[in-house]
Amino acid sequence: MSAASAVDFRLDFDRRRRTGLDEAVFAEGKSAEQLIRILRAARARGNALLLTRLSEEKYRALGEWMAHLDYCETSRTAFFDRRSDHPEAPRVAIVSGGTSDASVAREAERTLAFSGVSSASFLDVGVAGLWRLTACLDAISEFPVVIAVAGMDAALPTVLAGLVAGVIIAVPTSVGYGIASGGETALRALLASCAPGLVVVNIDNGYGAACAALRSLQSRITPNFKLAEV
Amino acid sequence: MSAASAVDFRLDFDRRRRTGLDEAVFAEGKSAEQLIRILRAARARGNALLLTRLSEEKYRALGEWMAHLDYCETSRTAFFDRRSDHPEAPRVAIVSGGTSDASVAREAERTLAFSGVSSASFLDVGVAGLWRLTACLDAISEFPVVIAVAGMDAALPTVLAGLVAGVIIAVPTSVGYGIASGGETALRALLASCAPGLVVVNIDNGYGAACAALRSLQSRITPNFKLAEV
Amino acid sequence: MSAASAVDFRLDFDRRRRTGLDEAVFAEGKSAEQLIRILRAARARGNALLLTRLSEEKYRALGEWMAHLDYCETSRTAFFDRRSDHPEAPRVAIVSGGTSDASVAREAERTLAFSGVSSASFLDVGVAGLWRLTACLDAISEFPVVIAVAGMDAALPTVLAGLVAGVIIAVPTSVGYGIASGGETALRALLASCAPGLVVVNIDNGYGAACAALRSLQSRITPNFKLAEV
Amino acid sequence: MSAASAVDFRLDFDRRRRTGLDEAVFAEGKSAEQLIRILRAARARGNALLLTRLSEEKYRALGEWMAHLDYCETSRTAFFDRRSDHPEAPRVAIVSGGTSDASVAREAERTLAFSGVSSASFLDVGVAGLWRLTACLDAISEFPVVIAVAGMDAALPTVLAGLVAGVIIAVPTSVGYGIASGGETALRALLASCAPGLVVVNIDNGYGAACAALRSLQSRITPNFKLAEV
Amino acid sequence: MSAASAVDFRLDFDRRRRTGLDEAVFAEGKSAEQLIRILRAARARGNALLLTRLSEEKYRALGEWMAHLDYCETSRTAFFDRRSDHPEAPRVAIVSGGTSDASVAREAERTLAFSGVSSASFLDVGVAGLWRLTACLDAISEFPVVIAVAGMDAALPTVLAGLVAGVIIAVPTSVGYGIASGGETALRALLASCAPGLVVVNIDNGYGAACAALRSLQSRITPNFKLAEV
Amino acid sequence: MSAASAVDFRLDFDRRRRTGLDEAVFAEGKSAEQLIRILRAARARGNALLLTRLSEEKYRALGEWMAHLDYCETSRTAFFDRRSDHPEAPRVAIVSGGTSDASVAREAERTLAFSGVSSASFLDVGVAGLWRLTACLDAISEFPVVIAVAGMDAALPTVLAGLVAGVIIAVPTSVGYGIASGGETALRALLASCAPGLVVVNIDNGYGAACAALRSLQSRITPNFKLAEV
Amino acid sequence: MSAASAVDFRLDFDRRRRTGLDEAVFAEGKSAEQLIRILRAARARGNALLLTRLSEEKYRALGEWMAHLDYCETSRTAFFDRRSDHPEAPRVAIVSGGTSDASVAREAERTLAFSGVSSASFLDVGVAGLWRLTACLDAISEFPVVIAVAGMDAALPTVLAGLVAGVIIAVPTSVGYGIASGGETALRALLASCAPGLVVVNIDNGYGAACAALRSLQSRITPNFKLAEV
Amino acid sequence: MSAASAVDFRLDFDRRRRTGLDEAVFAEGKSAEQLIRILRAARARGNALLLTRLSEEKYRALGEWMAHLDYCETSRTAFFDRRSDHPEAPRVAIVSGGTSDASVAREAERTLAFSGVSSASFLDVGVAGLWRLTACLDAISEFPVVIAVAGMDAALPTVLAGLVAGVIIAVPTSVGYGIASGGETALRALLASCAPGLVVVNIDNGYGAACAALRSLQSRITPNFKLAEV
Repeated sequence: MSAASAVDFRLDFDRRRRTGLDEAVFAEGKSAEQLIRILRAARARGNALLLTRLSEEKYRALGEWMAHLDYCETSRTAFFDRRSDHPEAPRVAIVSGGTSDASVAREAERTLAFSGVSSASFLDVGVAGLWRLTACLDAISEFPVVIAVAGMDAALPTVLAGLVAGVIIAVPTSVGYGIASGGETALRALLASCAPGLVVVNIDNGYGAACAALRSLQSRITPNFKLAEV
Repeated sequence: MSAASAVDFRLDFDRRRRTGLDEAVFAEGKSAEQLIRILRAARARGNALLLTRLSEEKYRALGEWMAHLDYCETSRTAFFDRRSDHPEAPRVAIVSGGTSDASVAREAERTLAFSGVSSASFLDVGVAGLWRLTACLDAISEFPVVIAVAGMDAALPTVLAGLVAGVIIAVPTSVGYGIASGGETALRALLASCAPGLVVVNIDNGYGAACAALRSLQSRITPNFKLAEV
Repeated sequence: MSAASAVDFRLDFDRRRRTGLDEAVFAEGKSAEQLIRILRAARARGNALLLTRLSEEKYRALGEWMAHLDYCETSRTAFFDRRSDHPEAPRVAIVSGGTSDASVAREAERTLAFSGVSSASFLDVGVAGLWRLTACLDAISEFPVVIAVAGMDAALPTVLAGLVAGVIIAVPTSVGYGIASGGETALRALLASCAPGLVVVNIDNGYGAACAALRSLQSRITPNFKLAEV
Repeated sequence: MSAASAVDFRLDFDRRRRTGLDEAVFAEGKSAEQLIRILRAARARGNALLLTRLSEEKYRALGEWMAHLDYCETSRTAFFDRRSDHPEAPRVAIVSGGTSDASVAREAERTLAFSGVSSASFLDVGVAGLWRLTACLDAISEFPVVIAVAGMDAALPTVLAGLVAGVIIAVPTSVGYGIASGGETALRALLASCAPGLVVVNIDNGYGAACAALRSLQSRITPNFKLAEV
Repeated sequence: MSAASAVDFRLDFDRRRRTGLDEAVFAEGKSAEQLIRILRAARARGNALLLTRLSEEKYRALGEWMAHLDYCETSRTAFFDRRSDHPEAPRVAIVSGGTSDASVAREAERTLAFSGVSSASFLDVGVAGLWRLTACLDAISEFPVVIAVAGMDAALPTVLAGLVAGVIIAVPTSVGYGIASGGETALRALLASCAPGLVVVNIDNGYGAACAALRSLQSRITPNFKLAEV
Repeated sequence: MSAASAVDFRLDFDRRRRTGLDEAVFAEGKSAEQLIRILRAARARGNALLLTRLSEEKYRALGEWMAHLDYCETSRTAFFDRRSDHPEAPRVAIVSGGTSDASVAREAERTLAFSGVSSASFLDVGVAGLWRLTACLDAISEFPVVIAVAGMDAALPTVLAGLVAGVIIAVPTSVGYGIASGGETALRALLASCAPGLVVVNIDNGYGAACAALRSLQSRITPNFKLAEV
Repeated sequence: MSAASAVDFRLDFDRRRRTGLDEAVFAEGKSAEQLIRILRAARARGNALLLTRLSEEKYRALGEWMAHLDYCETSRTAFFDRRSDHPEAPRVAIVSGGTSDASVAREAERTLAFSGVSSASFLDVGVAGLWRLTACLDAISEFPVVIAVAGMDAALPTVLAGLVAGVIIAVPTSVGYGIASGGETALRALLASCAPGLVVVNIDNGYGAACAALRSLQSRITPNFKLAEV
Repeated sequence: MSAASAVDFRLDFDRRRRTGLDEAVFAEGKSAEQLIRILRAARARGNALLLTRLSEEKYRALGEWMAHLDYCETSRTAFFDRRSDHPEAPRVAIVSGGTSDASVAREAERTLAFSGVSSASFLDVGVAGLWRLTACLDAISEFPVVIAVAGMDAALPTVLAGLVAGVIIAVPTSVGYGIASGGETALRALLASCAPGLVVVNIDNGYGAACAALRSLQSRITPNFKLAEV
């Protein structure tokens, strides 16, 4: 109808050069047809692609393209033209408060993996049973970047931020009911946290947390920089 | 103007018999004149009275009645016709996350004192520096009832509830800024807490928490009742 | 994918020793597979287990494990390795405002039963027909702990708290429509209540109210303690 | 500056003919100069005028006009060119939950008085001490219209609506703190009330409640109409 | 399980005597089994019954009881033991802003009919096309009570309240999308209305508006009472 | 049941004369039967009609009327009695931030087309990859009116408004998750925009944006009017 | 401290060329010192400047610069280096619902005047007294652009939009109390309006509405363009 | 009164060892007396201290301690026992959208300075005049960590995150009015941003953003680590 209707997506294949991050495609709200056109464009240019929020149903609607995707149903992510193995040592710790947060934690893990970064997961270490966290604390402290996933009252990242020195990226999750309000309470509690230096991303945004971790890892920081002994 | 205008307050001096709790007067929104009429009624009946939310200015506007009140400016409470000393052993622990929460903690302490119950305070033990809490933990565990006062993200009561067995009454406070929203985030986080058996009162409601503690203490519980070994 | 993926839940079997409360499993957001792995772990350790928010569908997906569970569909709870009979006298009153609140009231009742505590229920005694409540008042007054379940405007616990002396734990429910907002109005009204000493838990959180009741019952309160005659 | 700037108010002196209600002037947000111009216009036309939300400060800024006004500081209302006595029998009951709600109750009383309708007030009869309400119940039942003023959790109008048959107009007030949120909780609770036939006006809107009462009183209802015995 | 479990509903058949309103049953959240037990109780006592929010599915699940109900699917109401014809002259006008509001308008109409009161409907007279309203204005003005149903920005009742003298009960509806927020915007706009004497009920609460209308109609108002010519 | 029930819709065929805009029918919440009666009324009068929010299901329920409609499933709009081709030069630019916003952009395009106005679409030019927008900037600047569709944080219209001189009508969309809150964040961000002269319509309201564009186009503005060189 | 601290403002004197709108300075949150430095920069470049949200106090703190400003205290705006007279015919109608909205209406008027555009004001024409609006309707219809200012329930712009054909820019105001919530209800009602083609700006944003009007006026619309007779 | 009252603060001087961050004191809500006791404790231990949210009034109430503090009134911060000069090259860029955001930007700058880290500020580069940002882009890209401060619709950090590769920590500010809601809109927009890897802290939390920057700088990242060429 309109002259421009042939061009309804514009992939940002140049993003990696500018920001170090790969283009990703948010599949929610896109039809299978749109996704297939996007995959075709990626193949035509020889680009790999990360798809997020790709429900199992929509994945199955992709037909022959399914064979070209490395799909993970827990995290609802798919890799096009990239393998998910990455043998080197993990550089990011992913810590979560409950088993129900697993899909968000896995989305972060997969996003890192797509960029070639391994991670180590410490799941179900919520602070209502504090020993579960303290038992892992030394291991977590080894990582320069921690992604902390927590729903409900999201107290875990606050406690963690008082105990470790690395970058702590908190992801509130929509786990919970009633006043948990689909993650809004967790989000608010994290932002109001009294623990200094905690940073926060949107509810259930494991992808964004992983991108923030990647930004941290690639920072052009002077080797062995240490805060001055003021 | 109206026939009923002579009767604009009805004290509930019978409340103690019904509920075990003394009548208290919420001074906010009442004029000094109204408060004086209430004090007169209490004196006429020989009743003691607890005033809450009595600002220093309004207290000073009470004129000669000041001499008859035991006033505490931190908690903005006043006792009429009752002394605040109470030498017996404390039965309630009051734990708070930061020094800014002191006025709420003190309101709870004073309300308990008005009913003849001593308390022990453990202030500024927020979980962002976890050692502050763990250092007091054994002492706190000795109390059958704990009032936990916390603002911002209010993670303290959650951690506490995973570690001690007593009744835990959480009071969110209006300390904080931005998304702390005058205590609403603390309130929501406490209600969404994953720690089982935590109960919550309104923001800054030290008085209500103390009343709940009094209800617990006076419960007609079978002596030495212990949960059955099912 | 990650080294830690084999450990995605950490049961807190030690919770009872610390807090007197049994470990419970919140089944919402967990897959049947996860639940089965949790049940296996409980069996391996010889531990009983309470499952909450277990929908009938998910219960049916548990296959042979169904036979080992005492399931209640009204409350969506299941007991593993514990019987639900408890012949001794009830220690907790459960009062609710309308028949629609039954599932929440039942969740509280079942959680108490799992810990070996009997309760007596007084259902559909909302204050819009006040006689329904006053007819039960003497019976309710006999209990040291009252769980009051109420949706919509949640006026019942306020009225009750002015009439009885025990611990009153209010549970707002998501019953209602429009501005009832899934229980948020009930929750807010309960927290803003003018009745002193009312405590509140999350919307629909019958489990949490029961845990709070258990904390009250097991408090190491001096036998026959009575508030001093100040 | 603009051609229309000479005409910045347009009084609706015709309102009485259309709706039976007098024109009233909401003084908040208007300068003393604007109010004086409005008073002049009323005098020029020989019209009486009710001013609402007129703070004492602004009233004092009206200079010589003060002498022409019957001012009430509790309700912040003023009558121009009308006396406030009204000897006939009261037709409206005004019931309020606490002494702090007095200014709103009085605004309703004054608005009715301005239209020549007497009212009877029943103040401080909140339901946390239920006997205070039940003692007045027979008297309240005599009125065809009841204005029920209540803050905090606003349980009073719900209880009342289950007990009396007349029109019940509920006014939430901004009394309270924390989650009371300036009257929003009271407003929501009233709208979500399970008591049938309760109607609600804006927070602190004693004026509006009185206007609704006037609409009820003047309804062209068939004399002695009674609901059919269906 | 609990001794009280046999009594999970308490019908308020006495409500009519106290308040003039019949008992109604809110069917949402009740199972078909519960409804059948309630119907049995009504039949046993020879009482008629109004059921509201009875979805067509749940109605069909009532089996043989269907034959005893006068069901209306638009309004999701059912009458037990009462016919819905009512030949006398209508006493209430029901005005609505759009055709999508029909189910709420019909719920009000049916509730009135159950109590033997006829109504006249003026549908789809929203103010964005003002002529639709003004064309009906004279007819509407004849009624002592008007129920005004409106969604989205709900401007209709405000305009109406400036033009007619009767009682105006506004019902916000959940019609709309985006910031209409399920009726919350309509509700807020109605409460903030600058038209004096407008009263409001909960979103989609046609039943409550009808009950309020019934309260108005049955008020024991002196015959031919008119506001004094002050 | 009611006398008025035969008239449950009143089409505003006169709207075009008053406002220059055609009557449109919001199909959400209307039954297929209601829509058919409306279509019949339009045919009887010889009027064209635009239907919005017509889901594919409901469209299919219209039976033989389907053949008389020009239906577009992306935008869920249908034209009755009007063709959608419009060969003249486009007068409105429609710019959108992401492919997921396509249905809203298309609703705007179709509404314009129904009134005989062509548009040019610039899709997927979100500012997170700024080059996508700057590449189209010259083309966009040619249009007197721009409709800017954007979800999530809705930064696109702000950037655009700083760069072009025309009318900019922003449409927030419900695309996004978590704190995007169904478009509320986008809506708020657009209204709080620091770019001067941006105007906003409801979430997902492509229809309303197009109507606003039509109002702009038909304004009786003096030809070649230019802001004076003050 | 930082190298960049000498440059803490960057005026956008080029804005006019890009967007046709003059640079304006939002004075709220800026110190008198900052404003003086900005005025100096404007004088140095020979640029006129519009200051908005300049409180009288801050204006008085500008010292000798006061003499160079054309200040209006109602609207809190100041012109630097531009006179406010503009004798030509008005091109914009400014309509407002109540006298309390005057400051916002005046801010719009002054912003237009700064750009050399005259306006005509129609104040206090709220729809609760509909005759006030209808009396001005013919005059208002003459203008290609209407700015409609309204607080509380903001019904005025909806009614207007159904009656006139021009561009209608609605400005919600913070006038009102209780649920009016500082203008949020007015804003929401305007966005949810059922009147097609209404556009909205932020609460109290008279400046923004005027900028939108300027964008409309300067649109490069084909002379005498009229919507095709489709 | 209580035994614990002598201990109302517990400084966390050990924090640096655990997390690399210095203890800071949030002065809001603390009395001058409390602050002096804290300063004494710091002096006794020989510790430096950063005070935040110290209003000028409270600073002046510190008496002789003023001489020992390096106070900045723009940011309301004070250094005890540490000088604020730090000659080495800046490692953090601080970018802000408007001059009104200066106090927040300065709080971040001062917090960094207290830890011995220099920063470079790029102020007033909001995206409504995009050239202001693009002119600084190359300079900003040089920094491994960027703190982006923005109020109102907060579009700046989104645009920036699409253009640079470093860590981007966004701070929403409370600048704005109406729907800006004290920074809540900015906060929400930042969290909903479509730019990948943006992280967010609480409204006006310049201190927290600086702490997050310090965590990034001190991360034990392998020198010259670069994301693998996958």
